[in-house]
Amino acid sequence: MQDRAARTRRDLIRSAAELIEQGGFAGASVGQICALAGVSRGALHFHFGNKQALGEAVESTAAEILLCVTGQVPERHPAPLQFLVDTSHTLAQRVVCDPVLRAGFTLAHDAAWHSDVSLWQHWRQWVRGLLDLARRQGSLARDVDLDGAVSAITALMAGLEGLERDPARDRIARSVTPFWRLVLPQLAAEAVRGRIEAAGSSAAMADEPPLERWRLDDGAAPHECAAMSDAELCCVPYREMSGSAS
Amino acid sequence: MQDRAARTRRDLIRSAAELIEQGGFAGASVGQICALAGVSRGALHFHFGNKQALGEAVESTAAEILLCVTGQVPERHPAPLQFLVDTSHTLAQRVVCDPVLRAGFTLAHDAAWHSDVSLWQHWRQWVRGLLDLARRQGSLARDVDLDGAVSAITALMAGLEGLERDPARDRIARSVTPFWRLVLPQLAAEAVRGRIEAAGSSAAMADEPPLERWRLDDGAAPHECAAMSDAELCCVPYREMSGSAS
Repeated sequence: MQDRAARTRRDLIRSAAELIEQGGFAGASVGQICALAGVSRGALHFHFGNKQALGEAVESTAAEILLCVTGQVPERHPAPLQFLVDTSHTLAQRVVCDPVLRAGFTLAHDAAWHSDVSLWQHWRQWVRGLLDLARRQGSLARDVDLDGAVSAITALMAGLEGLERDPARDRIARSVTPFWRLVLPQLAAEAVRGRIEAAGSSAAMADEPPLERWRLDDGAAPHECAAMSDAELCCVPYREMSGSAS
Repeated sequence: MQDRAARTRRDLIRSAAELIEQGGFAGASVGQICALAGVSRGALHFHFGNKQALGEAVESTAAEILLCVTGQVPERHPAPLQFLVDTSHTLAQRVVCDPVLRAGFTLAHDAAWHSDVSLWQHWRQWVRGLLDLARRQGSLARDVDLDGAVSAITALMAGLEGLERDPARDRIARSVTPFWRLVLPQLAAEAVRGRIEAAGSSAAMADEPPLERWRLDDGAAPHECAAMSDAELCCVPYREMSGSAS
């Protein structure tokens, strides 16, 4: 029974995500969401109360996925700039293959949607944390304007996500490497400059943190998602799935 | 009479733009648009037919403003990369101070909105044209991946526009210079590298093309917009203003 409730909540979040992505929050009707999820309107109201609360569940699930991709900013890291580059690749791949994450970003761009959750705010703060760490560890070029670099890196991801959403999704992933090729020579201190791989280090892209965290959730790592079926993509345990609404 | 019709069309476009920016296309109701413009529903229907057509008028007006900011890609230019940098600053400033342009970009991000006009497609093609020109003229570093650079520069502007829309608009303009500081050393050929001003060349920011074109329209140049009243911002002659709908 618990499993069935969890499945219903998950199906509703996923269906809402897919419809939000197509038509924005205002364009996703309760009737369409229920039809796509194969549940009754009563089930939506039982589990979420209303469409607004379901939208909030989509957004908070997307935020959890994002947090799972980035992890917290570490205290120390052997190669913080490489970690930043690798994580940006992971995020781009995850955006390509996860409709709930895409819906979260769609809501962030949706002028009709207002909430306190900001996926981009999280990404911005994480990037800032990593660049701070890089500076403390001497990996950042001395003359880098930290605020400017944070803005550029945040905006790049936001822009790629927004621009590439419709026509050819895999272009997102392909645009990340050229960006780092342009930016890294200025960003990295001379001592590490030649050692950062703009295309992502194969080690980190395979099983280093934060990807390892996905394993804990018994889900597939993002780099494998292209080969995954839709049903397997939601590998973050949804908070909403653990119980029913009051 | 012609003037009054033109003013009504302009007021409707501007009111629709402001409401689209706040609530997306789906969230902007005909009633709200008419109330804000101070006209009757009948006037909206007379001039545009319906809300969809009014939305299209907002978008095509925004596209005209964008074209006015960029101009066509020139055949030759004494400093194509500086021209690209300057135009990106102009665009950022214009986004900050023009609600119709912002609404055009809002529509481009709006999942509920579907049209053939793409402001970002125009910006992307313009950037590509400028980088092509820079390459032909020997201003571009030899090893630059043109597609990658076009994606990065397009995405940067899209991301800044999307991210900074709400909280503090003037941050858009402030983020452009740090981006160019990071990117120009890799992008520019050695011969011109030290001569490009990331903050924009004062000459171009004052009265070189494409800003000069604004003068033809009897409107203020974008760099002056911070000091302009709202009514003066719409300095592109709206195509929609030249006649009434059929």
